[in-house]
Amino acid sequence: MLRRDYPGVDSPIAKALEVIGERWSLLIVRTVMHGNRRFGEMQENLGIARNVLSARLQRLVDEEILERRAYSENPPRYEYFLTQKGLDLWPALIALLHWGERYSPEPNGPSRLIVHKECGGEVSERGICERCGKVLTARDAIQVSGAGRGAKVPAEAAGHAPD
Amino acid sequence: MLRRDYPGVDSPIAKALEVIGERWSLLIVRTVMHGNRRFGEMQENLGIARNVLSARLQRLVDEEILERRAYSENPPRYEYFLTQKGLDLWPALIALLHWGERYSPEPNGPSRLIVHKECGGEVSERGICERCGKVLTARDAIQVSGAGRGAKVPAEAAGHAPD
Repeated sequence: MLRRDYPGVDSPIAKALEVIGERWSLLIVRTVMHGNRRFGEMQENLGIARNVLSARLQRLVDEEILERRAYSENPPRYEYFLTQKGLDLWPALIALLHWGERYSPEPNGPSRLIVHKECGGEVSERGICERCGKVLTARDAIQVSGAGRGAKVPAEAAGHAPD
Repeated sequence: MLRRDYPGVDSPIAKALEVIGERWSLLIVRTVMHGNRRFGEMQENLGIARNVLSARLQRLVDEEILERRAYSENPPRYEYFLTQKGLDLWPALIALLHWGERYSPEPNGPSRLIVHKECGGEVSERGICERCGKVLTARDAIQVSGAGRGAKVPAEAAGHAPD
């Protein structure tokens, strides 16, 4: 632990926020979840300053939320992967995503949707597939374009759209 | 919106974090959820500086997450209540709580548990009652002592403890 943001608070939520409550941290986890594994991709996706991104990535590696793996030796270049601890942030991210959509909605509806890879159903606020009812994890879900709600669901999975 | 933390990021999660991502904000929501409605109670519960608490409360009121109601006119004193928007942060808080418990566990097990008021079942990471299966909201849940897991569940509700 580098520092204590909430020294007097005895709560698992405070402990979680000590680790992922810094500005940008959860958005970095989200962008890696969406497949942006390289520094440049993350920087472009988030528009974050290089020094801030560097510091946050190091912290997330120190906290064992991300794992760094070299993909080039000369020059040394790394990709970042979520550990199980990182993947387990998915339910919190999904809940925040739904809350953000509900209370700061995009004027034309969500531009992207999180759906269940297997059946194309939309993922509920609780991380449950609204079509098949399965309790999902990060690995079960994928982000697709939300234009027209469900438009880009894989063909074999796209039955009728959920209500 | 007072400022933009994530100006380049087009994501509902970023929008949520613009509103509740500031240091202390989620912990203030949590402490109000647990019935600490007055400034002094919150300050004692969180060990937060008065000026920071004041600023965060004002922001949470501005964002319509908390509602301020006077309980004394002279001197003027207020209690804070969660709006529906604030109550709807519950699934995200529950997910973070479980993540914190899993990865920064207390040595003797959780000192407090969140249980379903109606049946005393423990609340899962997805905010679902592990005993009766109901999908819960903030109003359905209560925090109890976790000593001995389920020890302080209301007598009429305490059947057998969940596995």
